[in-house]
Amino acid sequence: MSSDQQHKEKMQKQKEKIDANIAAANIEKGVAILLTGNGKGKTSSAFGMVLRSLGYNKKVGVVQFIKGAQNCGEADYLRAACPEVELYQMGTGFTWNTQDKAADTRAAEKTWLVADRMLKDTSLDLVVLDELTYMLGYKYLDRDTVINGIAQRPPEQSVVVTGRGGGKALRDIMDTVSEVKDIKHAYKSGIKARQGVDY
Amino acid sequence: MSSDQQHKEKMQKQKEKIDANIAAANIEKGVAILLTGNGKGKTSSAFGMVLRSLGYNKKVGVVQFIKGAQNCGEADYLRAACPEVELYQMGTGFTWNTQDKAADTRAAEKTWLVADRMLKDTSLDLVVLDELTYMLGYKYLDRDTVINGIAQRPPEQSVVVTGRGGGKALRDIMDTVSEVKDIKHAYKSGIKARQGVDY
Repeated sequence: MSSDQQHKEKMQKQKEKIDANIAAANIEKGVAILLTGNGKGKTSSAFGMVLRSLGYNKKVGVVQFIKGAQNCGEADYLRAACPEVELYQMGTGFTWNTQDKAADTRAAEKTWLVADRMLKDTSLDLVVLDELTYMLGYKYLDRDTVINGIAQRPPEQSVVVTGRGGGKALRDIMDTVSEVKDIKHAYKSGIKARQGVDY
Repeated sequence: MSSDQQHKEKMQKQKEKIDANIAAANIEKGVAILLTGNGKGKTSSAFGMVLRSLGYNKKVGVVQFIKGAQNCGEADYLRAACPEVELYQMGTGFTWNTQDKAADTRAAEKTWLVADRMLKDTSLDLVVLDELTYMLGYKYLDRDTVINGIAQRPPEQSVVVTGRGGGKALRDIMDTVSEVKDIKHAYKSGIKARQGVDY
């Protein structure tokens, strides 16, 4: 059998497998996605889904926990080019910069109110909750409140949560969980964080 | 010591560690990033970096290997809203749909010419080579040609490669490698791929 023929048969088998999986997945609903792990690509992936949704003129809401005190190209872009995207940033910076638990808790709770409103808004197709996991890790937000808010959103709404950790209870209610593993990071070879790539 | 005081000290230590790492990373150059693994979030992460770069008015080129035959919200968005982004799609669909090695090889080689031109273009700040790894896995493209093209790009240019696998030689020349692990996927619970999220 020629190499081309072998290739054709291998591809045919792969196609049959993929087609069968696609046929089996027929539930139409919004998905809850958690992007966790310590590697690069969690927030950027969430924003890629924002861009993807905008390609179909879908309505998007974005809440960024932590971020807002530093440069953030993705937020700048949305503000300038996509005023129809609802964007809210907690704006207190990384919590290790403030070192004030009471103030961080207040900021997180205020930000959660915005997230919770979006999670009840049937007009939104996609809600991004960027870096939400840290709010749970530091206990700035009540875990059950957050989990119920996500679980009880409108069935057609998709939600993307990013951040390291998050805990088992959060993972359990998500449809898709990806763990982004840091195999290698430019940072560790002394390369400075890059505008447009890292922030 | 109060819980608030403990929190403050923990945050202070974390801040010192982060600050020291940031101070140590002082090389300014474009970064080469590989997003690999079998989980959801590789292509979307690359497009998040496109959006991030556009937030700083940076010049971006995107080459999508494989994609182009199916719906693709991110490409639709860029074509409609960002005509300044150079976008090229191989357009043959997933290779297991064609099962024709010679035709796929010709399509891949033609697409590589576009990628290679972008990798030599000093005006581009970011080049995305989406799903490139499969071209190497199926041997549609010569590994050394691809690796040299990426390694010899302008020093200020960042490049993002996505796709499962890719091989050791490719990993070796990348500055950052993230492996997106599939912990759980909606697909496997019977949930249909979602417009704006999965494509």
